[in-house]
Amino acid sequence: MTHRVGFVVFDGVTLLDVSGPAEVLHQAGRLGHPYDLVMISACGGEVRTSTGMPLSGTVTAAGAGRVDTVLVAGGDRLAEQPVDAELLATTRAVAERATRVASVCTGAFVLAGLGLLDGRRAATHWRHAGTLARRHPRVRVEPDAIHVRDGRFVTSAGISAGIDLTLALVEDDHGAGAARRIARELVVFLRRPGGQSQFTTPAPAPARDGLLRPLIDSVLADPAADHDLPSMARAAAVSPRHLTRLFHAELGTTPARWVERVRLDHARRLLLDGHSVTSVARHSGFGSDETLRRVFLRHLGTTPTAYRQRFTSTSASTGTARGPFPGAGDAVGHRGA
Amino acid sequence: MTHRVGFVVFDGVTLLDVSGPAEVLHQAGRLGHPYDLVMISACGGEVRTSTGMPLSGTVTAAGAGRVDTVLVAGGDRLAEQPVDAELLATTRAVAERATRVASVCTGAFVLAGLGLLDGRRAATHWRHAGTLARRHPRVRVEPDAIHVRDGRFVTSAGISAGIDLTLALVEDDHGAGAARRIARELVVFLRRPGGQSQFTTPAPAPARDGLLRPLIDSVLADPAADHDLPSMARAAAVSPRHLTRLFHAELGTTPARWVERVRLDHARRLLLDGHSVTSVARHSGFGSDETLRRVFLRHLGTTPTAYRQRFTSTSASTGTARGPFPGAGDAVGHRGA
Repeated sequence: MTHRVGFVVFDGVTLLDVSGPAEVLHQAGRLGHPYDLVMISACGGEVRTSTGMPLSGTVTAAGAGRVDTVLVAGGDRLAEQPVDAELLATTRAVAERATRVASVCTGAFVLAGLGLLDGRRAATHWRHAGTLARRHPRVRVEPDAIHVRDGRFVTSAGISAGIDLTLALVEDDHGAGAARRIARELVVFLRRPGGQSQFTTPAPAPARDGLLRPLIDSVLADPAADHDLPSMARAAAVSPRHLTRLFHAELGTTPARWVERVRLDHARRLLLDGHSVTSVARHSGFGSDETLRRVFLRHLGTTPTAYRQRFTSTSASTGTARGPFPGAGDAVGHRGA
Repeated sequence: MTHRVGFVVFDGVTLLDVSGPAEVLHQAGRLGHPYDLVMISACGGEVRTSTGMPLSGTVTAAGAGRVDTVLVAGGDRLAEQPVDAELLATTRAVAERATRVASVCTGAFVLAGLGLLDGRRAATHWRHAGTLARRHPRVRVEPDAIHVRDGRFVTSAGISAGIDLTLALVEDDHGAGAARRIARELVVFLRRPGGQSQFTTPAPAPARDGLLRPLIDSVLADPAADHDLPSMARAAAVSPRHLTRLFHAELGTTPARWVERVRLDHARRLLLDGHSVTSVARHSGFGSDETLRRVFLRHLGTTPTAYRQRFTSTSASTGTARGPFPGAGDAVGHRGA
């Protein structure tokens, strides 16, 4: 019996959250592993996707028949306002009878809204991970994960991560070889380096405590200065132990780890602004290239040089050649990377 | 005046070739850089995409109005059979008046069929690069490129590379900062490591020459054996110079480069089969880990270890946690990578 996948969709659904997974499943079919796809919405009929492109032929939960895997797609409004009661009811109806329940991007807000992720680990778009955690404190949000599985629930990071998630489902159903062949067809990696943390631009949470505020401001203003525990405690006129307690309460981490994170964010910005690795290491407070490299590998799963290449420009010294636009006519010179 | 992008689509069009670029342009709009999207088909109305999902509301070339950028999407049949006259005519009509003409994946076959890529560099899906080059000998196909620009023409590699291509268009129109913000929203890299060569499974072209055939078979059978030029020439009972000429004529490369390519392909397979880097270096004929690493960096833009991680499985030791399926109910144990 062909495995049936039901996509829960709605007006404003992110098209790529639907089309990416659908393309993975289509390619699985070409390899001899067919999946039945059905689009499910609260009222059936047509829904309007993020790009304006309509999705027609959707059915209601009642009309969807058997659904083995449910996939709830994301959309901008899910993180910005309470989830519609109708969308919740639709999702509950199909999730109840499915053996596997997945969400892409902000689709996690729908599953969380139904309490299905309580006590579970979950992923969502990096931009909304904090909101999901605050709105649903019983969900253990993993902000860096590309996708997370917990029991019969699988949740993914933002938008294109739906492709990664669906490859993982196919891998479960048909093995890593099938997933690899599909990834090659789609020209995507089976597993991405560094997880979602590579994409975030994490701003340190603003501390509400009047005591921490000036300390945090001084670290943010000059990350390369000396910010070890004793000097920070002295600046705040508290004991190191009390300062550590305050950091835990306000920022959920230790002073040293928080300072490292601020320096890493600063280093990422400097790198993308075109500074040399050595200059970045010095001005971000890491000192040596080797320390910078170690911190990058630990937090982002990549080196400073590879990170910069990945995020600086679409133009590469190999694999891409470009000329200026608009430049009709003949072949033009290459712009190096 | 809003930049207008016309997507040329048809029955069987790969949905992700359309929806990926459309999502990039939608995100550009959210950043204050709006694009008008219009779907164009030979007859207008509805077309059926690869996944079965219909695309409705397409218009004819005549009805499309002004089009600044044309983007021709791909589809399986474009590489497999001659391109429909209607699709060619539709594309010609919109391409003539556009300042920029792009193709995703096998969409390059449409542009090449119109002669628009003659004398130009171009990219297409790795699986069809050889076919494009054979069918259109005046096109300079770059098999490893993710996207290639030549004059007002931009062509991309397969399927998901349409996202990369569209980020490059936005970068041209609105700068690298805008492209980077969109890439972050979509959770994709702005520039991918290693180009398309990471995805191909290059089989050495079968030599038609009776003299090369047994030599090629012996290298393929045991890539790690000694295959330097003198010993290969001795085995074929020809002079080294004549052997080099034969390789050029039959395989378009030197004996040494061809042997290196065979060893690289063998090494990739052994790595994905789970062999250690040292074992792979020895059994593929590269000898040392360092040589293997150098060859990987030169051809694939990555290290053997990173290559394996990227292609072995969707399950990662960080960023993803998984349990067995179907496993309804409670949180389950993690399977490490």
